[in-house]
Amino acid sequence: MKRGPTGEKNEAVSAAAPERISVSGPPHESTAWVGVGLLERAAEYLRSPSGRFLLAAPPAARAAAAAVRRALGTAVLAEIAIDDAESAKTLASAERVADAALAAGTRRDDAFVAVGGGVVTDLVGFVAAILFRGVAWNAVPTTTAGMADAAIGGKTGVNHRLGKNLLGAFHPPGAILVDPRALATLPERDFRAGLVEAYKDAWIGDPALAARAGARLSDVLERDEGALLELLAGSVRVKAAVVLSDPKEGGRRRILNFGHTLGHALEAAGGFGALRHGEAVAWGIAAAVEISRRRAGLSASDADAVRRVLAGLGPFPEPERDPRRLREYLARDKKTTARGLASVLLDRIGSAIVDETVPLEEWLEAARIMSLS
Amino acid sequence: MKRGPTGEKNEAVSAAAPERISVSGPPHESTAWVGVGLLERAAEYLRSPSGRFLLAAPPAARAAAAAVRRALGTAVLAEIAIDDAESAKTLASAERVADAALAAGTRRDDAFVAVGGGVVTDLVGFVAAILFRGVAWNAVPTTTAGMADAAIGGKTGVNHRLGKNLLGAFHPPGAILVDPRALATLPERDFRAGLVEAYKDAWIGDPALAARAGARLSDVLERDEGALLELLAGSVRVKAAVVLSDPKEGGRRRILNFGHTLGHALEAAGGFGALRHGEAVAWGIAAAVEISRRRAGLSASDADAVRRVLAGLGPFPEPERDPRRLREYLARDKKTTARGLASVLLDRIGSAIVDETVPLEEWLEAARIMSLS
Repeated sequence: MKRGPTGEKNEAVSAAAPERISVSGPPHESTAWVGVGLLERAAEYLRSPSGRFLLAAPPAARAAAAAVRRALGTAVLAEIAIDDAESAKTLASAERVADAALAAGTRRDDAFVAVGGGVVTDLVGFVAAILFRGVAWNAVPTTTAGMADAAIGGKTGVNHRLGKNLLGAFHPPGAILVDPRALATLPERDFRAGLVEAYKDAWIGDPALAARAGARLSDVLERDEGALLELLAGSVRVKAAVVLSDPKEGGRRRILNFGHTLGHALEAAGGFGALRHGEAVAWGIAAAVEISRRRAGLSASDADAVRRVLAGLGPFPEPERDPRRLREYLARDKKTTARGLASVLLDRIGSAIVDETVPLEEWLEAARIMSLS
Repeated sequence: MKRGPTGEKNEAVSAAAPERISVSGPPHESTAWVGVGLLERAAEYLRSPSGRFLLAAPPAARAAAAAVRRALGTAVLAEIAIDDAESAKTLASAERVADAALAAGTRRDDAFVAVGGGVVTDLVGFVAAILFRGVAWNAVPTTTAGMADAAIGGKTGVNHRLGKNLLGAFHPPGAILVDPRALATLPERDFRAGLVEAYKDAWIGDPALAARAGARLSDVLERDEGALLELLAGSVRVKAAVVLSDPKEGGRRRILNFGHTLGHALEAAGGFGALRHGEAVAWGIAAAVEISRRRAGLSASDADAVRRVLAGLGPFPEPERDPRRLREYLARDKKTTARGLASVLLDRIGSAIVDETVPLEEWLEAARIMSLS
């Protein structure tokens, strides 16, 4: 059963109550709402202590932002235009957003609503984290990457020329609205790249979801709302469970970084923008699968199942494979401590472990041989 | 009994164990150590998960920074020069400090040591809050203001052209070293302005300390180490008790802002730098005393006792009193919510209350008539 963005079938779906997923508990409660047609009912779910909202969105999220604005009406204190290029996710951009918020008379009991992709939620969430030492905010992701990953867990931040997300804060949004219809205008390449993160969540934490969503890959790629809802809700559920078990990323939460250790290095080494984040993570997962085969006992059939989905989501551009280039970026990884490079591996689909003993050299070798075809 | 910075008497004092004051509990434990001669033993008290430190200091704190560096030896990963002008407390400066830290190979288990005044601890603490979404840090205040106020409570941040400390984070330092000898080279004007904050803590929370330190004002002004130690330790004790009772500044913690509501406005209206922060707070306290007389039942003798100490710490430059100028700055106060302007008043020396019903006009009138002579 396939549904377009405006057909009758959608009416029936939007009438259903959204799924409520608690992403973090007190003192910083964060609730994700997942459902079709949520944007039009945003006023029921978004939170602000004062009742006033600062609506921040990039031009690419115009349609979704307009729906949220209609829903909020006069509760919108100001609209702030965001540049959602990864290269614009800087401390200077954060200051400009803060400038606009302060010029609009924002008080510490007002709340931001970030409508857009991961850059927007990371940036606006970070401004919310530091404005008056912390104001409330809400996330309305309009990309598959954002729905699967960016706003959940409370990670916010900006990039530094030496690496992504090196400056930031933990500051969970009060509400996260995940509405597959917000994806209507998302370009195909971004749509597919972001799905890597959604499938990643299934692979690290939900074997049944991984099997179902793997089988429905073609429906997902055709943007079937039912298939998307199942994958995205499942992804949010996995991520929420992991984050709730480890709010500050000391231990188990690190499994969310499956594919990210090498992924971040590939992304930075290629120059931000050469590979989409999700594409770099896809390659990072391909490498992690190689290492998981050898070190964690991942079966050949599970490894193939992961690679088959990644291949279906692609093809993705060739990444940097030169060990001399990758080494410096890997060595800068935030997960590098005196104990070594924390690496997330799969022992089987649905089950991830953290191995702190993987030498940097092994990642470089995996990057050389990894394949997605 | 007066002691110079290097005399024999100091040897005897430095041998005494420092006072240990717990400033915040888990998960972000913060301990203040107060004692004479602590700088030379900094390695015993400063904390870093990795054992490595980034030493950040301005030229003005050269002597104290050198003592800390000698104490830490090879544990110092890098030294970072900080511009401690209030005008340099910006997001751009924070980025430069982060640049230097990242260029030095800082890892997320390393720790900063900020040696200097409030600008330095606010700025470096903020960088520690956002680098890798939070690394450890330590504060070694070298000003009376910093010892009494800046590093305790975990407030960090930078200024914005629309107001002070509008961007920041709560991120307590692991250790705070308060050593009166670090004040040896502090210019007289800064020394006196900072003492306003120390006496303020006594007035809001410790009547016995207020009486003793009031009586010993001339010893304090002569930098008698014993008198300073008593006032500073008492001030830290009051602040720690208040912060522990309200870690996130929702309720009781607001009493620490005694004198700051109008003080911040006076400081901003005069242009940062015209009045020292402590000087502006002194005027703010003078105005708050007027309002406390009328609204909170503060006695004439208590009001006189406060004013007498403030006069002894001064004279301070005349502040802006024009209501048209002050109004806009007061209206921007972070403590302004939909409920009104939260104002801290004294009902007697040693006891502060928060009154959320004071109209802005009443502050403007108090600013017009307040006096410190």
